Amino acid sequence: MFNFTGTYTDFYQLTMANAYYQNGMHEKIAYFDYFFRKAPFNNSYAVFAGLETILDALENLKFSAEDLTYLKELGFAADFINYLAKFRFQGSVYAAKEGSVVFPYCSNIIVKGNIIEAQLIETLLLNIVNFETLIATKARKIKLAAGDKILVDFGLRRAQATGGYFASRAAIIGGFSKTSNVVAGRDFAIPVSGTMAHSYVQSFDSELESFRSFIKTWPKNAVLLIDTYDTINSGLKNAIIIAKELEKQGEKLFAVRLDSGSFSDLSKYVRNELDKASLAYVKIIASSDLDENIIAKLVEDNAPIDIYGVGTKLVTGVPDAALGGVYKLSSYAGHDKIKLSEEQMKTTIPGFKQVFRIVDELGMYKSDFMAHQHEKEHKELYDLKTNKKIFITNENIKPLLALVMENGRRINSIKSLAEIAKYSEKAINNLKSDYKKFTNPKAYTVGLSKKLLQTRENLKSKIARNVES
Amino acid sequence: MFNFTGTYTDFYQLTMANAYYQNGMHEKIAYFDYFFRKAPFNNSYAVFAGLETILDALENLKFSAEDLTYLKELGFAADFINYLAKFRFQGSVYAAKEGSVVFPYCSNIIVKGNIIEAQLIETLLLNIVNFETLIATKARKIKLAAGDKILVDFGLRRAQATGGYFASRAAIIGGFSKTSNVVAGRDFAIPVSGTMAHSYVQSFDSELESFRSFIKTWPKNAVLLIDTYDTINSGLKNAIIIAKELEKQGEKLFAVRLDSGSFSDLSKYVRNELDKASLAYVKIIASSDLDENIIAKLVEDNAPIDIYGVGTKLVTGVPDAALGGVYKLSSYAGHDKIKLSEEQMKTTIPGFKQVFRIVDELGMYKSDFMAHQHEKEHKELYDLKTNKKIFITNENIKPLLALVMENGRRINSIKSLAEIAKYSEKAINNLKSDYKKFTNPKAYTVGLSKKLLQTRENLKSKIARNVES
Repeated sequence: MFNFTGTYTDFYQLTMANAYYQNGMHEKIAYFDYFFRKAPFNNSYAVFAGLETILDALENLKFSAEDLTYLKELGFAADFINYLAKFRFQGSVYAAKEGSVVFPYCSNIIVKGNIIEAQLIETLLLNIVNFETLIATKARKIKLAAGDKILVDFGLRRAQATGGYFASRAAIIGGFSKTSNVVAGRDFAIPVSGTMAHSYVQSFDSELESFRSFIKTWPKNAVLLIDTYDTINSGLKNAIIIAKELEKQGEKLFAVRLDSGSFSDLSKYVRNELDKASLAYVKIIASSDLDENIIAKLVEDNAPIDIYGVGTKLVTGVPDAALGGVYKLSSYAGHDKIKLSEEQMKTTIPGFKQVFRIVDELGMYKSDFMAHQHEKEHKELYDLKTNKKIFITNENIKPLLALVMENGRRINSIKSLAEIAKYSEKAINNLKSDYKKFTNPKAYTVGLSKKLLQTRENLKSKIARNVES
Repeated sequence: MFNFTGTYTDFYQLTMANAYYQNGMHEKIAYFDYFFRKAPFNNSYAVFAGLETILDALENLKFSAEDLTYLKELGFAADFINYLAKFRFQGSVYAAKEGSVVFPYCSNIIVKGNIIEAQLIETLLLNIVNFETLIATKARKIKLAAGDKILVDFGLRRAQATGGYFASRAAIIGGFSKTSNVVAGRDFAIPVSGTMAHSYVQSFDSELESFRSFIKTWPKNAVLLIDTYDTINSGLKNAIIIAKELEKQGEKLFAVRLDSGSFSDLSKYVRNELDKASLAYVKIIASSDLDENIIAKLVEDNAPIDIYGVGTKLVTGVPDAALGGVYKLSSYAGHDKIKLSEEQMKTTIPGFKQVFRIVDELGMYKSDFMAHQHEKEHKELYDLKTNKKIFITNENIKPLLALVMENGRRINSIKSLAEIAKYSEKAINNLKSDYKKFTNPKAYTVGLSKKLLQTRENLKSKIARNVES
């Protein structure tokens, strides 16, 4: 649906690119790390998403004729415009599997390329991966609250404009089953869901008549919205009449939908009335400003709701609304690079790295650590926050990052959204419940290898000496 | 940049459309109201935005071949698919001026069309107008805090994916001057802004060398980012050296940018050092997680910051992240329509309406009220919340909604973003400061005409009788 071109970026990427070009630095190789410092939603973890989207964008990235004309108008020199006209991303990408459970400070993506291409894609990569990761993480939290209840994404109308397209994709990675978003259904093969709005009911002289007309067109899988006028005294009664009429045709009403009211009591009342009418098979759908906390409470109350439609709070990822993922230079022209900060944790981790995950004998995640890509032996790690040494005693150490793109082309075939979602569901089960609690989740240990720690300290000292001199 | 097609919608719009079609109702005329019930950000008002975007989408809306193939696969009947293949939006749109200051419950847009076209566009309209209005309102709040300081949108990397494109547009309506978002700059003629990132500085052996290389390429309007290693002991000193070198070439350094630290103290220190070096013309730019509250505090502290770069909190509209605008059927086939709710304020306001604004002798906004479109005399209004009668004594009553689209085509030429922004700045000055306070803003009075109140009460009673019978 979207065609990302070269101008889908921050202006400074282009002013820097031009300076690199004019200074003859544009063939030098750079490495950048994508990572976040704080998991969203008070979590210990995030669900990594957006990888296939960004790989697709990188494979197709170029400056359109419109882009080039515009940049010429802005005053970029002809030689640089020429360079951009031929520009294709031809770098390499190392990444965690999409759908992985990932943790603060550890690189989820490493981009290697010449300094111009690796820098130019920063905005695009952050824009996509930050957002899809945010929403996949939100969706997973909602799914953890909902247990085996079915979740449907109803968010497009309240989404941040076309961001909703990517939200619908990410929601599936996080455990949602369906979407109301038709174009996302079309492009990502997500099952679509939806039947009627209040306006449909209103456009008839009576609610019963509106229901009857609807099942005439849609005898199968119909969902009747029962709160347009009065849920208990009108909507439910009419839905039962219709369900009985459908039975005479050999069909079954699929569900009734509640879109207002106190869901715990109301769903119990509705369930009871449906059961009394021998309509135990008719499901109950609830929608209206739901989030993980409201759903957790309803599940705890044993509210007999089978399907939750979640909109605004899913697709906008409130209360956070953004993941603060960053993209930092770690190496340039063969030299490890660092950015200092008054906050120790904000000082970057230099060099071309690998992230390793230590898992226990059952495959449960214990801790992650970063090391130089070339390091072979792993005997100890240093906790990133405390610098405390932790011995690595077991041997279940898995590298998290794999080469997924080389010379600007994907190495493997495109993974379907369904595959990614399946993997993500498996992955979250490898995280112990302590880390997944809604209140005070346990912090996951993240560390550095001894050599990487030394590299970082050495670079810090070197710069301190430069500043002093 | 974006091509909205027919499937950019919720699935239920299509299931309903099919039912309308199969029931032979698709030529009947319907009216829908777009309005919101609660202004965002604890405001009394919102800044209405997204109108030109949605009009453009409506003029070009059709089902693509890909859409039709997909809908066929989903099982829609051939006659309905045929209908969709020929579908164009041919309705009328009445709307407030884009950039207007608008208030809860009053319709900002009224759509008139056959029930299928008017219904089908609901999701698209809500998706665009909710979001642009949210961001224009956020931008205006930040601008009110910033006063005459210049604001630049830096948000694309943290935006909700491609939603950032529309955020950059809306930010200009709300009072921002520039954007880092190049594609938005290209399409909306917004001045773009940006120079260097930390990675640029890092890719050289020394900070001074990086600055020097940069001004070689960009001798004019350069901004130097001075916090990569140490703002006070390194970045600022090097920037002063460069400024002096530029002076020798007859050029002037435009600004230094602070991206971390305690801005109030730091900006004063930096200003003082620049002034001591006879660089009073060098401006100070600050960026890093800013919002209206932080900026208000900095302005109050007299921090000598000339330009603020605002990112995440602008473009995602946190803490709200969504405007809950709705689109409600008010009339169908010549009959006024209503949707009831247990919450009185959520019961809709029926009929084809006009919104009137009462202004005082200085043009300041006093109150808004809705009336039937055909009502000519306005002597009193009834407060929507209290039902209290308020006499209309002055004669400065202006209709807010004008016909902007007829038979699916815009009536007027497209308004440029600059024109809209200019109008919006004028409009906000017509709202008294009581309504614009950040804490406990005064609530704006919104009411109904006597006739409209009666229509609503009559419809409510009629439905109550139907439910009872």
